[in-house]
Formats: sequence, structure tokens, C-alpha cells
Amino acid sequence: AMSQFVNINEFKIEAQKKLPKMAYDYYASGANDQITLADNENSFKRIKLIPRCLVDVSNVNIKTSIFGVDIKTPIMIAPAAMQKMASHLGELDTLAAAHEMGTIMTLSSLSTSSVEELSEQSKGNPGWFQLYVFKDRKISEDLVKRAERLGYTAIVLTVDTPYLGKRDADYKNKFHLPLNLQLKIFSHLPLSKLDGGLNNYMATMIDPALTWKDVQWLKSITKLPVLVKGIMCPEDAELSIKHGADGIIVSNHGARQLDTCPSTIDVLYPISKAVRGRVPVILDGGVRRGSDVLKALALGANTVMIGRPILWGLSVGGQAGVSRVIKLLNDELLLAMAFTGLNSVKEISPAIIYKHPLSKF
Amino acid sequence: AMSQFVNINEFKIEAQKKLPKMAYDYYASGANDQITLADNENSFKRIKLIPRCLVDVSNVNIKTSIFGVDIKTPIMIAPAAMQKMASHLGELDTLAAAHEMGTIMTLSSLSTSSVEELSEQSKGNPGWFQLYVFKDRKISEDLVKRAERLGYTAIVLTVDTPYLGKRDADYKNKFHLPLNLQLKIFSHLPLSKLDGGLNNYMATMIDPALTWKDVQWLKSITKLPVLVKGIMCPEDAELSIKHGADGIIVSNHGARQLDTCPSTIDVLYPISKAVRGRVPVILDGGVRRGSDVLKALALGANTVMIGRPILWGLSVGGQAGVSRVIKLLNDELLLAMAFTGLNSVKEISPAIIYKHPLSKF
Amino acid sequence: AMSQFVNINEFKIEAQKKLPKMAYDYYASGANDQITLADNENSFKRIKLIPRCLVDVSNVNIKTSIFGVDIKTPIMIAPAAMQKMASHLGELDTLAAAHEMGTIMTLSSLSTSSVEELSEQSKGNPGWFQLYVFKDRKISEDLVKRAERLGYTAIVLTVDTPYLGKRDADYKNKFHLPLNLQLKIFSHLPLSKLDGGLNNYMATMIDPALTWKDVQWLKSITKLPVLVKGIMCPEDAELSIKHGADGIIVSNHGARQLDTCPSTIDVLYPISKAVRGRVPVILDGGVRRGSDVLKALALGANTVMIGRPILWGLSVGGQAGVSRVIKLLNDELLLAMAFTGLNSVKEISPAIIYKHPLSKF
Amino acid sequence: AMSQFVNINEFKIEAQKKLPKMAYDYYASGANDQITLADNENSFKRIKLIPRCLVDVSNVNIKTSIFGVDIKTPIMIAPAAMQKMASHLGELDTLAAAHEMGTIMTLSSLSTSSVEELSEQSKGNPGWFQLYVFKDRKISEDLVKRAERLGYTAIVLTVDTPYLGKRDADYKNKFHLPLNLQLKIFSHLPLSKLDGGLNNYMATMIDPALTWKDVQWLKSITKLPVLVKGIMCPEDAELSIKHGADGIIVSNHGARQLDTCPSTIDVLYPISKAVRGRVPVILDGGVRRGSDVLKALALGANTVMIGRPILWGLSVGGQAGVSRVIKLLNDELLLAMAFTGLNSVKEISPAIIYKHPLSKF
Ligand SMILES: Cc1cc2nc3c(=O)[nH]c(=O)nc-3n(C[C@H](O)[C@H](O)[C@H](O)COP(=O)(O)O)c2cc1C
Ligand SMILES: Cc1cc2nc3c(=O)[nH]c(=O)nc-3n(C[C@H](O)[C@H](O)[C@H](O)COP(=O)(O)O)c2cc1C
Ligand SMILES: Cc1cc2nc3c(=O)[nH]c(=O)nc-3n(C[C@H](O)[C@H](O)[C@H](O)COP(=O)(O)O)c2cc1C
Ligand SMILES: Cc1cc2nc3c(=O)[nH]c(=O)nc-3n(C[C@H](O)[C@H](O)[C@H](O)COP(=O)(O)O)c2cc1C
Repeated sequence: AMSQFVNINEFKIEAQKKLPKMAYDYYASGANDQITLADNENSFKRIKLIPRCLVDVSNVNIKTSIFGVDIKTPIMIAPAAMQKMASHLGELDTLAAAHEMGTIMTLSSLSTSSVEELSEQSKGNPGWFQLYVFKDRKISEDLVKRAERLGYTAIVLTVDTPYLGKRDADYKNKFHLPLNLQLKIFSHLPLSKLDGGLNNYMATMIDPALTWKDVQWLKSITKLPVLVKGIMCPEDAELSIKHGADGIIVSNHGARQLDTCPSTIDVLYPISKAVRGRVPVILDGGVRRGSDVLKALALGANTVMIGRPILWGLSVGGQAGVSRVIKLLNDELLLAMAFTGLNSVKEISPAIIYKHPLSKF
Repeated sequence: AMSQFVNINEFKIEAQKKLPKMAYDYYASGANDQITLADNENSFKRIKLIPRCLVDVSNVNIKTSIFGVDIKTPIMIAPAAMQKMASHLGELDTLAAAHEMGTIMTLSSLSTSSVEELSEQSKGNPGWFQLYVFKDRKISEDLVKRAERLGYTAIVLTVDTPYLGKRDADYKNKFHLPLNLQLKIFSHLPLSKLDGGLNNYMATMIDPALTWKDVQWLKSITKLPVLVKGIMCPEDAELSIKHGADGIIVSNHGARQLDTCPSTIDVLYPISKAVRGRVPVILDGGVRRGSDVLKALALGANTVMIGRPILWGLSVGGQAGVSRVIKLLNDELLLAMAFTGLNSVKEISPAIIYKHPLSKF
Repeated sequence: AMSQFVNINEFKIEAQKKLPKMAYDYYASGANDQITLADNENSFKRIKLIPRCLVDVSNVNIKTSIFGVDIKTPIMIAPAAMQKMASHLGELDTLAAAHEMGTIMTLSSLSTSSVEELSEQSKGNPGWFQLYVFKDRKISEDLVKRAERLGYTAIVLTVDTPYLGKRDADYKNKFHLPLNLQLKIFSHLPLSKLDGGLNNYMATMIDPALTWKDVQWLKSITKLPVLVKGIMCPEDAELSIKHGADGIIVSNHGARQLDTCPSTIDVLYPISKAVRGRVPVILDGGVRRGSDVLKALALGANTVMIGRPILWGLSVGGQAGVSRVIKLLNDELLLAMAFTGLNSVKEISPAIIYKHPLSKF
Repeated sequence: AMSQFVNINEFKIEAQKKLPKMAYDYYASGANDQITLADNENSFKRIKLIPRCLVDVSNVNIKTSIFGVDIKTPIMIAPAAMQKMASHLGELDTLAAAHEMGTIMTLSSLSTSSVEELSEQSKGNPGWFQLYVFKDRKISEDLVKRAERLGYTAIVLTVDTPYLGKRDADYKNKFHLPLNLQLKIFSHLPLSKLDGGLNNYMATMIDPALTWKDVQWLKSITKLPVLVKGIMCPEDAELSIKHGADGIIVSNHGARQLDTCPSTIDVLYPISKAVRGRVPVILDGGVRRGSDVLKALALGANTVMIGRPILWGLSVGGQAGVSRVIKLLNDELLLAMAFTGLNSVKEISPAIIYKHPLSKF
């Protein structure tokens, strides 16, 4: 039974048992020496929370909202490619779990289910759509408009992938999509072919010449809110807002692009200070415990996204696995809030973060 | 023979051999990733003591007092639940050792011996009583009054447990009290049932709505000194005093509640400075060597409490085991005092703590 | 096939399998406890790069130039002794790869191919020549002049080796040159004998009395640019320029001389600031990833040199191995530049280095 | 052959193979968790030396002097108890090696050879004598006077041992002197009995009531220079001088007394600055490489002493082993001096210590 797995790490271990090595490595890997991969998690561990006591915490709740939409948890689902390697229904399982748990999923441009399938299953409420901009802008434009028509409620523009990062294990494994699967970005387009491997696909199709002007262009072709995903410094946060972004996702792509960049939680606070609440700030990268969520919110994030934990849940138990993963984190978040004397998301502030008195004594 | 175990860690290793996994894990575990659990011990190791020489240390002694009561050592016994999993007589063994060694034990609300049994065995001198406040305040009030009548000399109000922390191993083991044991908070009440597991028991019985007002309420129903256990920042220390607390226990519940909170020794000094001697300050968490005791006293604690070391002693050798554990720490404390040129507890001051000259050269 | 090795470390592992222990240890070792050896690599890992996004990076290139000569990559080949232990053609393979990849090799004074052979193979364009100054200055002078005549384009004066460093493994292995090989510094001189081991050779032949005046002397006997290799502090950089050096190589000899000296990347920035662009600054030591190259250039180096990575490539696949090693690093460098929003070497600046906000929160 | 061991660590490994566990543990152990034991060595590794180049280092030499006596190396031999567990001739072997290498040995009060034997063997030039002050001052006084008569040239008063430190392994092993050996502090006294173990012996015989006045007393009964061994802070250094000490030994007794005290090299600089050259300062603790010696001298020590390295040499090869150990360190020191551009002990200064530019970038 799923209840035997009591934390994210146990899901990861079980996923590794169940998945073929090529798929597991693709999901798990970070770029190069995986220094940032480790850092994304370890930086959270280094940040300390101050317990507070004798506050009435009999009614802690974790509800919040984003772009005016209520969600039952600040934990959202990051776009992650090719989920059918993890479960038979892949992205459809994940979406079902998102609905079950009252949160929002972002569908990847590189999904193995089509944008139509998700829309259909969710009765026109499939969540957000993540966009890689194709060299052929016409394709991109059609894609965005189609997503809008299909009920997607925001466009997540990923800006940290002009090229695919070098994940050594994928090079080693000569990673490719299993033959029975396709990249179904449209159900009808030949874009689904991945014969030359993912690097090749990205290099051929995706545009490394994207600039800030393209954010304005994107805004001009859709009424949906546009979030820029992959911001890692205050300067780029400022530029995002200046070019019309409706939200910012602080992300290093799960440490899969530039190794030895900082962990996301380490750069969050200066970015959220620079943003000053003008647009929502979302963080992803390394969130593995409810206390990580609390720390991100304390340092200025409106919500967080989780990537790999979703994939481990999916691999272990399909929809139920994803739901259980979110449930575990929700429960841990509730406890962490109770122990820091907080009853609601809006009470969370930097005051709960412990400042180590270097050279105190 | 017990004398083969020459330090606390050897007692721990032996206890692990003797105890069923479920019991050992319950005693040993900290919350979640056990980062604070490790930190509680490691922070002590990072603090350095300055040796002093050519002071006459032929008469070092470690006697001290708390609330006007003389004790033979500043090492007291922390409240720890369910000690009959460790030895046949459980809390009664521990109490006997406390008397043997001239120190004070605090009985846990979740003990497997009743408040009456301890009172009886000790001829009306059972030490302190630790209180979890029940949702039903009447039960709590009766309990406090009964403890007072039975000769307990202080009430330790634990304030860091509105809910039970998530100790992953206990979840994994589906921890429950062995069938032959009961929570004997009163010998006559059905509160002793623990069918649904400990989390459930706590969630059902214990009040997460406790606030500072309840400290005043508690003060109003008893003449005993009230200590607030679970203080981790100067602000809450100040609030404790303001609401009438007679003492403060700096504690993170042995790292069993909020993982990634600071170690207790790291927060002690700012707290003791804020308290400015108005009430006694006790520290627990991670004390495993006599030098740890010395460091805590140097940084402002009046005494320390030890939790797990007591449980390892109890598991290995019942009363004799507990006494030997305290003896080992006493002897190490004596040596550490001699090597820092101190002859008595009242001579201990922050001056013995080494300040590392960062970027000295 | 060579393409199975996807990073420098895999080449190293394969080289260890192929080489006799004595040769592998000679190549791999650092001095004494190899603390600086580890530090050379680890310091790079600790330096973080700031990702930048939405810059058009469709045309990143890594071309640069040194002393007015165009090279296709800022990655040059450090002088490394006795390369015929690694491949049949040794230095000749390395030189062929340098030409293939459009970069410059520096031939070691302790090479197992003669200066003539390299000149011949490269049709009079063998790259740079590294000089150890012999006690007999006449030999040194002849050597320099001959190198100049043979088409070498710069003299790299190694100044960190008045004596050979103590590499414990070499002492243990009683390292010596295999019988079939010779030090061919001149094809005609008996200097090639290495009967008494390398330490002895160095102690007998090489002059530990070298001073800054000898840089002036060297300048006086050749028209070639002279680089001083082994600079580790701003003072010596300043002295180099003052005594006429045309370039500076920040190097600790691959951590083979003085153990517990700083890593090269840690001292680069103060040195490059002191040099203020008056002469080119080259860094070597611990470069194992393209991002390391980027960091060195960001902190003030004009180019970098790699030592052991070349030897691993050579051991695994001769010329092709060396080329593949350089190609791997070039590709990683291209990616790292794209992810930091840079299109050319001259755009690289300290701005991409992340400053960790110590005690930020 | 001894030459197969190329560094101190190899001697240690070999010694562990040859010695009975009880003896090896006694020699190797530090107090309690051996945190300071590790720190004594690791602190040296953290201190970085700045290489300097193009200084004529063809004539480096390491001669120095102490109390006007020339020694061939700044590496002296620390007092270490019970050396006959290591070799048949024990202290006599060590003394022979000291003479061979041109340095000074300090004989321990707890030696297994008598003060007379060493004097005899060395023709009245046995070096220094280390004193533990007996409760019976008459015995102590006789001892000092006898040592003076026998040709010992300085008294090393050890002040960090009012009681023996708790070395857990010795407690575990119930350490005692092998039956065939004796503590031969005088050849004629029954003090040689060690029936109750070493702790007991110390507790019974040695005076924990020693104070600074006893330094004055000691000065009054001997014309020999008196060094105070065990100084770990500037205050005690000042007190030593004030009470007439002729020299100071910065020592934490090889981390065998107070665990979690600082490493000796970390406290050396503030102490040597406080001393301002008024008396010689000697450091011991953790010296394992020639570069450690150089660092100690750079930070203000006149000479260093080595303890365990001597015991490993003695265990592996008697006199020849001790000599080889000193030779290895001398050679490493020579190299380290050459690489930092220094030709003599008096040129050594704090300028060669690298200051890490924290938050440089
Ligand atoms: C296997 C995998 C595939 C991913 N695919 C995409 C993608 O297609 N588009 C995208 O914007 N981000 C993608 N990401 C990045 C995630 O959206 C997210 O930034 C990252 O996973 C968060 O870090 P975490 O995995 O530590 O939670 C992917 C991440 C992983 C692990
Ligand atoms: C097994 C166990 C049970 C505990 N039960 C209680 C309890 O019932 N009430 C309480 O206030 N604290 C309880 N504590 C916390 C201890 O009182 C104390 O804060 C902690 O053990 C100190 O840390 P240490 O174990 O590192 O010495 C418990 C701790 C342990 C390890
Ligand atoms: C096996 C080996 C031999 C070397 N021989 C020489 C040499 O003959 N002359 C020289 O100036 N440097 C020599 N070096 C140092 C290199 O030029 C260079 O400084 C160093 O290898 C750079 O560090 P890396 O190996 O980490 O890239 C040698 C290095 C190694 C590893
Ligand atoms: C086995 C052993 C025995 C020692 N005996 C004595 C002693 O009898 N008197 C004394 O003053 N110091 C004694 N010491 C301490 C040494 O003099 C010296 O301070 C210490 O060994 C230096 O550290 P090192 O071993 O790391 O070089 C002893 C040390 C060891 C390891």
C-alpha cells in the first residue's frame, strides 16, 4: 500500500526500483557534476526555522490563491517532460491528482499527452501550459492560441533552455524516448518525432535567439497571464516585469541546465525583495519537505512548484501516487506552520527564519 | 558488567542491541531528516573550551541548587515518555537512580507508571511533573492538583507539542505502545488507552489551542513553580516571564518536533542574556559529554537535562544503568572543570568559551 | 568508441585502467597530502555562476587570441613531462590534436620527444616551449635559441620548481622513466639519462639559484615572448612585469610542488586585478569542466591551460583522445556561456560570478 | 627497509600493525570524542602557504638555536611516556636518534628508562627533563636537583595534567603498563609501581593543587631554565612570564586532556603576539609534515616538538626509525621553505601565510 512510503525520499527509492535506468536517470539527473542538484536540496536544510510556542494553532490552514484562483495548497506541479515513461497515463494521471488535491498543474511542451487530451479529461480546466518557443514562430503562435482555447489559464514561458543542459547520465545512456511514446505537443503535428534524441530535437526546433522582446510578442498574442520561468537574479526579475510578465518563477530548471549556479532558495529573497509584490513569485527546485515550502514562502514566494517528487509519485502509484506525495508535503507544511506559530499562509513572513549569530560568543 | 561502557555512545549502541526496533526507533528518532537531531550534538562539538592551568583544582565540585533545592549535579533528568519499554520498572528505575545520584527527575505526562506509584516509591518526593494540557481543562486541573498533593515539586509545562512531530521512523514502524503497557497518567482513568497510536492520542486529547493565558491559568491553580519547556527564542523567553513562568527550559524536544530548527545550545546564549537571571534557565538537547554540560552552564544555563542518555542507561541496566550514565557525565564534567581551572558551578562563566578569530591571520 | 566517455572524469577512470600504476600515479599525484590537488578542483565547484536569460545566444563562439595569434578556444595545453608513457607518439599526438583543435601546446623541457621532432611534424609551428633553466647557462641559452629557430613562438619559464615537489606516491613507487623512453630535450645530448630518478635529475641539472635577474637575462637572449609560469600572488605578478615578462601563468604546478598552497582559481582575481591588463594572464590547475574555463575568464584570465585532462585523453586515445577532451570542454564552455547570456569571450566579466550573501537572512 | 615509508602516516600504519592494541591505543588516543585530536592535524591543513618564486634557494638551511644551544632542526622531541612499549630500548633509542639528528629530546616523568640511564648513555648530555610535580614536594625537589646534576639542561613543567584526561580507549582497554616494564622515574624508588593503572597512579602521586606560585618555587630550587608546557591562551602565557618561566610550550598535550579545546596552531599566533619575543615559544600538537613546522614558525613559534611521530618511528625501527621520521620532516621543511622563498629559519615570518579573501568576489 502507498501508505508505507512516509516521505518523498522513500518514493524516490521505490521509483528507482520500478523505472528502467534510462528513464530514472532522465528524471533524476542534474547537469554535469550535479553540484547545484545537491545544493537545491541542501540549501533548504541549512536554513533554520525559529519555533514559536503558545499560539493557538488549532486551525492552521494552507489555502491560498494565485491570479485570483483559489488553491488548497501553495504546492503546485511543475512542468515535467515525458511523464508516460512513469505511468501508463502519464500527464493525465498527474492532472487528475492536481484536481483531487485542489492545486494547479503546468503541462510541459514536451509532454507525452497532447494539450487536447488534458483539456478533455479536465472538462476544459487543465491548468497552466509551459511553452518552449519554436524557431518557427507561427507554430508557437498557433500553439499558444490553441492552449488558450482549450482552457489553459496561464502560459509559463521557460527561458532557461536556449539549449538543453548537459546531463552526463543522459549522454552516457544515449537517452531517447521509448519507441511506444511520442512528444504529443499537438496530436496532429510531426513534431512528435524524437529520432535524433532530445538534444537534437531541442537544437533543431527550439529557438536559442529568444529575447525580452519575445515576452512582449507573447503578451500581444494571448490574453492569458504569462509567467517567465527560469529567473535567477533580481536584474532578470526586473526585466521580466518591465517587459510585461505577469509572474516570475525562480527556477534553475531543477539544476538540469547550468551546473554550479546557485540553489533557487538562496537567490529567492533578493529577487522577491526586488519584485516588491508587483507580480507573484513562484519558486521551484529542491522542495522535498513541508518545511521547505514554509521557508520559500517566508522568503517571499507566493507558491512553490515541485518537479521530481511528482515524477516519483507518478512512477510508484500513478494518480494516487501523485496525490499521496502532495498530501505528505501538505501535512508536513501544516505541522511546520503550527510549530512556528502560524495559522495561515498570509501570516508567513521572514521573521520565522533564524539568523545565525556568526561569531556570537 | 556495566563498567565496560565508558561513554554515552557505548550505552546507545548496547541499547540498540537490546531493544526491539520499534522501541529503539521511538527513543532515538528526531523529526523528518533528523538534521536538528544531529545539530543538537554537533553544535556542542563546534564550541571550544579554553584550557587554563596552574589553578588549584584539588577540590572541584559540581553541587548546585534549583528553586532553593540542593542537587549534587547540574545534570537533571528530562521527561521522557513510556520508559517501561526500556526496563521492567521503567520510570520507577529512573526515579530510584535520580535519588541515588542526588538529582531531580521530571515525570512525563505520557509515562507508563502512574504519578501515584512514583510518589509512593519516593516517599512523597518524586521530583517534578511534566504536563501536557488536555483539551478537557478539568482533567488537567485535577491532574496538577493531584501532582501537587503527591509531593511533586514543580510543574514543567511542555509548550512545543500542539501536535506530535513527524518522526519518520515511527510512521514507518506504525509505532504503538506494546500491548502489556499503558499510559498511566492516572491509575484510574481510561486515558491510558493508546489504540489509535500516539499521534492519534495526542491529536484527540492534547490541546493545540494553548496560549500564554494558559500559563497564567496554570499559575492560578497551583502553588508549585511552573517551568515553560520548549523555549527557543528570546521573545518567547520574555513572554514566559511576563506571564508568570518561574523557569524556562530551552528545548527543541530533542529535535523531535520541528526539524531544521536551531540546536538548543546555539540559541541558549541570546536567551539567557535576555532572561538576565530573573528565572532559572535549563537547557536540554544533545548533551552527551561532561564538557557539553560545562558549555551549557558557561552560556547561561543553571542546569541541564538529559533525555536519551537516560533511556540508554535504563535499557542497558535499569536503575544501575541510569546511575552509571549520570556518573559518567559527572566525572567528565569534573575533569572538564579542572582543565578549565574551575572549582565550582558558580565559577563557570562565558570566559571559558573560545572565540575563533575568523580571518585572524 | 571514444564517444562513450562523456566527461573528463570518465577519461581519467579509463586512463587509470590502461596505464601502469607507476605512470598513472606520476600523472595523477599532487604533493604530500594532496590537499591543494583537491582544492584546485573543489574551489571551482564552490564558485557559482549567475544564469541570465532571454539574451540571443544563437551564435555563441569561443574564439580568442593570445599574443596576436588567433586560437579557436581559450583552452590551451599545459606543459606536461614524459607523454610517451601515455601513448606511443606522446607529445607528437598531443601536438597533432592541438593543431586539429586550433589551440596551442606548450612542450615540456622534460619531454620524451625532441624539440626537433615537434617542429618537424608541425612544419615549423610547434607552439610554445617550456623552459627549466639548467645550472649550465650555456646549455639553456643554446636551448632557447634552438627553440626559437625551430619555430616555437613563446618561452614559458617555469619558476616554481627550484626542486621537485614531494609526491609521496612517486617516492613510494620509486618512480623512474621506463627503460625504452628518454628525456629528449635535445636529440643529441646525454641529458636524456634519467638513471637516478627524476628527483635526482632535477637536483643535478636544474638551477635552484634562479632569480628575477634571470628573467631579464632570458629576455636578452631571445626575441620570443617570455611567460613566467608559477605565479601565485600579486607581488610576484608585479615583479614579473617589472622584470620584463610578457605574460603570466597563474599556476601551482598542478598542486605538485607546495601542498597546502591556495588553489589557483582562489588567487586569480587579486592577481589579475594587480596586472591590470598589462600582460596576458593564463591560469592552470583543476580545470575539468567548461564552466571552470568560464569562471577563470570571468575572474581575469585571458586563457586557461589544462594538464592532466590532456594526459587522460592521450592515454585513452592518443591524438583522438586529446582532441575529444578539448572538444568536450569546448562544448561545455559554449553551453555555460549561453546559460550566462554571453556570446563571445570578450563579453565575459566578473559580473557573472555570484556573490553569496553571507548572513543575508 | 625503512626507506619504504615515505611519510609520517605510513609510519603510523606500520606501528599499528606491530604494536599490541593496548599500546597502540595508548599512544594514538586523544580525549573523549577525539575532536581536538583531529583538529590538531586538520587546522594545519586549513592554513595555506603562499608560494614565492625566483628567490635563490640553493642554500636553504634549517639550523636554529634554543636557549643559546645550536640545533640542526627546529623539530624537537616532545616528552612521551613509556617508550619501552614501542622498542626494546625505548627512551634510550629516542635519545640516540636525537643526538644523531642534532636535536633535543625531553624525557618524560613517566619514562620506562631512568634519568640516570639517559644521562649515562649520552655522556651527560641527555637533553631536557619533563616534570610532573608530586604531592610530596620533597620528592619533586630531589628529582629536579638530580636531573640538574645529571646534565639535563632544562626543566619542562607540564601544567595541563592536574588529572589524567579521559581517553576512552584506555578506559575500554583497562590500560596498564606491561608487567615487564616499570616507571623508572628514579631507578631506586618504589614510585615505579603502576598496579592500579595510570589514572590511579596520577591521582595518587601527582599534585592537582599546583599553582603559579609553584613555578616560582621551581625557579628557586634550580638554575636550569624552566619551560611551562600546556599554555593555550595569551593570559596564561603572560602569567607564565610574570612568574618567571623561561619558555612557553603551546600544547594541549596532544589532545589527550580536554577534548574540544582549540587546536594548538589556532591559538599560537595570539599567544606569540602576547609574548613579544620575551621568551621562546614552542608549539606541539599535530605536526605531521614539514609544512606544518613552517606554519608554526611563521605564526611565532621558535621551534616545534613532535610526540606521536616519534613513537611511530620508534615502534617501526627503534633509533633508526626515530631518525628517519625526523629526516623526513626535515626534508619536507627544506622543500616548503624553498617553495616559499626562504633560506633560513630567521627569514620565516607571518607574511607567508595566505589570508583567504572571504567574500572576495
Ligand atoms: C524530468 C524533468 C523534466 C522536466 N521538463 C521540463 C519541461 O519540459 N519544461 C520546463 O519548463 N521545465 C521542466 N523541468 C523543470 C521543472 O519544471 C522544475 O523546474 C524542476 O523540476 C524543479 O525542481 P525539482 O525537480 O527539484 O522539484 C523538468 C524537470 C525534470 C526533473
Ligand atoms: C523518547 C522520548 C520521549 C520524550 N517524551 C517527552 C515527553 O513526554 N514530554 C516532554 O516534555 N518531553 C519529552 N521528550 C523530550 C525530552 O524531555 C527532552 O527535551 C529531550 O529528550 C532532550 O534531548 P536529548 O534526548 O538529546 O537529551 C522526549 C524525548 C524522547 C527522546
Ligand atoms: C604529469 C605532469 C607533468 C608535468 N610536467 C610539467 C613540466 O614538465 N613543466 C611544467 O612547467 N609543468 C609541468 N606540469 C604542470 C602543468 O604544466 C600544469 O601546471 C598543471 O598540470 C595544471 O594542472 P591540471 O593538471 O590540474 O590541469 C606537469 C603536470 C603534470 C600533471
Ligand atoms: C603517548 C603519549 C604520552 C605522552 N606523555 C607525556 C608525558 O609524560 N608528559 C608530557 O608532558 N606530555 C606527554 N605527552 C604529550 C606530548 O608531550 C605532546 O604534547 C604531544 O604528544 C604533542 O602532540 P602530537 O602527538 O600530536 O605531536 C604524551 C603524548 C603521547 C601521545
